[in-house]
Amino acid sequence: MERRRFLGVAGLAAGVTVAAPAVARAAPRVKWRIASGFPQSLDVLRGAGTLFCETIAEMSDGAFTATLAGPGEGAAPSDAADAVTRGAVEAAHTASCYSTSKDPAFALGTATPFGPNTRQMAGWLRSGGTELLDAFYARFGFAGLPCGATGAQMGGWFSRDVSGLGDLKGLRITTAGLSGEVYRKLGAEPRELAGAEVYASLEKHDIDAAEWAGPYDDQKLGLQQVAKNYLYPGWRGGAVAHLFVGRAAWDELPRAYKAMARAAAALVTETTLARYDAGNPKALREIVAAGARLKPFPRDVMEAAYKASQDVFADLYEKSPDFRKIHESQAAFRNEDLLWFRVAELPFDVFIAQMQARG
Amino acid sequence: MERRRFLGVAGLAAGVTVAAPAVARAAPRVKWRIASGFPQSLDVLRGAGTLFCETIAEMSDGAFTATLAGPGEGAAPSDAADAVTRGAVEAAHTASCYSTSKDPAFALGTATPFGPNTRQMAGWLRSGGTELLDAFYARFGFAGLPCGATGAQMGGWFSRDVSGLGDLKGLRITTAGLSGEVYRKLGAEPRELAGAEVYASLEKHDIDAAEWAGPYDDQKLGLQQVAKNYLYPGWRGGAVAHLFVGRAAWDELPRAYKAMARAAAALVTETTLARYDAGNPKALREIVAAGARLKPFPRDVMEAAYKASQDVFADLYEKSPDFRKIHESQAAFRNEDLLWFRVAELPFDVFIAQMQARG
Repeated sequence: MERRRFLGVAGLAAGVTVAAPAVARAAPRVKWRIASGFPQSLDVLRGAGTLFCETIAEMSDGAFTATLAGPGEGAAPSDAADAVTRGAVEAAHTASCYSTSKDPAFALGTATPFGPNTRQMAGWLRSGGTELLDAFYARFGFAGLPCGATGAQMGGWFSRDVSGLGDLKGLRITTAGLSGEVYRKLGAEPRELAGAEVYASLEKHDIDAAEWAGPYDDQKLGLQQVAKNYLYPGWRGGAVAHLFVGRAAWDELPRAYKAMARAAAALVTETTLARYDAGNPKALREIVAAGARLKPFPRDVMEAAYKASQDVFADLYEKSPDFRKIHESQAAFRNEDLLWFRVAELPFDVFIAQMQARG
Repeated sequence: MERRRFLGVAGLAAGVTVAAPAVARAAPRVKWRIASGFPQSLDVLRGAGTLFCETIAEMSDGAFTATLAGPGEGAAPSDAADAVTRGAVEAAHTASCYSTSKDPAFALGTATPFGPNTRQMAGWLRSGGTELLDAFYARFGFAGLPCGATGAQMGGWFSRDVSGLGDLKGLRITTAGLSGEVYRKLGAEPRELAGAEVYASLEKHDIDAAEWAGPYDDQKLGLQQVAKNYLYPGWRGGAVAHLFVGRAAWDELPRAYKAMARAAAALVTETTLARYDAGNPKALREIVAAGARLKPFPRDVMEAAYKASQDVFADLYEKSPDFRKIHESQAAFRNEDLLWFRVAELPFDVFIAQMQARG
């Protein structure tokens, strides 16, 4: 339609018309229980679940609501997803990677070592990635909506100085998912610990190091009090949280509520990323002011870890056809996108960083 | 609530209950006309407006709808925003920077030379930036919802080789908003042209260069056919589109529809960015295969442009109190966030780029 005419005609009509429709239709009432895989201490990720609940309630005028609960004391992080599979709750807000022990392909929904960064992951998810993951999640009885993002994280806390690859030999490090496999190939001894145990284990020297999250979350755990060296960068370019919805609950959802859930999840993702981007710099300053030694991973460690991650992926290709299928798609998108990032995004970002460093 | 108990109780209730509420309440019917500031040729940005309309209609079951139209032939890009101000339409999907001639502060809603990148802009918008912009937009009679993002763009197309700052002397370049002011300080002669005129003007040598967008959009305009040198990076780290909604239309909107509009805008932003991230690499490959010379801006040009941008901002501080207030907030957020990017995001991204370059 030609614009002049459009504006002309449009100007005659009332802007907002409120009228009773021919048949008053009741909005169906839907009430979900959402199990959260995130403890209260991770207030941004936990808060992402709360924001999702608030947003759908507001959009539906209270007809589509959800309550968020968990995790209970001692519950494994994967319990939230399990609760969906067995039908105990309609949905879970959690990290896909918490279920990696069931199938390594679960790691791909969250982050992989040296995999896509936050932006590339978001691009892949909206370019067929979500559908691929969803087909995989269906085997466990749920649909997955990406719902939250952390941005890049830190390499972690190390009690001992890491000045080269040799320092990883026998290092007892707690980490999650595939990072542990990479560390194992480098001669370290990965341990799985619940979040609540990390502080005490570092303090008692039961472990030598902990890959946790970023400054905002790490500071809350107080890790700067029990380890000295804070290494960067993390090996995952960013991590994504998911809302897992039981297939029955999802299929029964009216089309309008599905659209609300998808849009609410996008709003939640944008908001959590912004909260981390606002909170991490301040926390990092305070952590360093409190005495942490901020230092980069030695180059030989980075290169060996990168190579080890490729070996880990090759191993997993043999073990899980789903991992292979999804990882190949994710890697192809990332590699292609990276060519563009090397032209436009990175030269811009690096130039600005240089200007800022110069003062 | 303790999680075990929560799950136990929850298991007894039906998942989805559909029941007629005590009083059947009609969803108010709201119909907006949205003027788009983007032509059909910019199918991602124009499509962002369409996606917004589709999303609110789906979420509201057809009660809250909008039609998208414009721009007409010969309409200035700022016409869409003007149509909102004078009440001819309820909303406009456009770029804030198209209205920079009214007040330079309009540029800050979209992008500024050497300002925040896409992620930092999104972080600032959700950390008080949206409210600051909104207070400014209110003076022109509308509310602003960030609704779409492009990611980083290219430096543009140059008929002549640019091997140093001297090559910018007298360069007739078409560009938008504050980039033009930066070019002017570097001795170039910026020209404002409508998008439809760029191709012909380059072909006829009426201009020597054009800063347009990124490969996906540039390719559609066919700029690779009329200029040889394709320079990177663009001076804006990313650009944001806005949905401008007339104050009356916004204030009359039921609370539920406001929530729908905000969430739909977030979904649109995520989707457009992903579409550019998916489309730019392919377009760039094709543009280079067709003979374009892809090359970085010379270092002296980048540094002089950076310095000139600071001078442009200082000038604008004198002219517009709104520009000063909003820019100070935006710059403070970006600078603080950049410290964190220099630790976690950039070292990760640069390392991966190095590994990819090595092959």
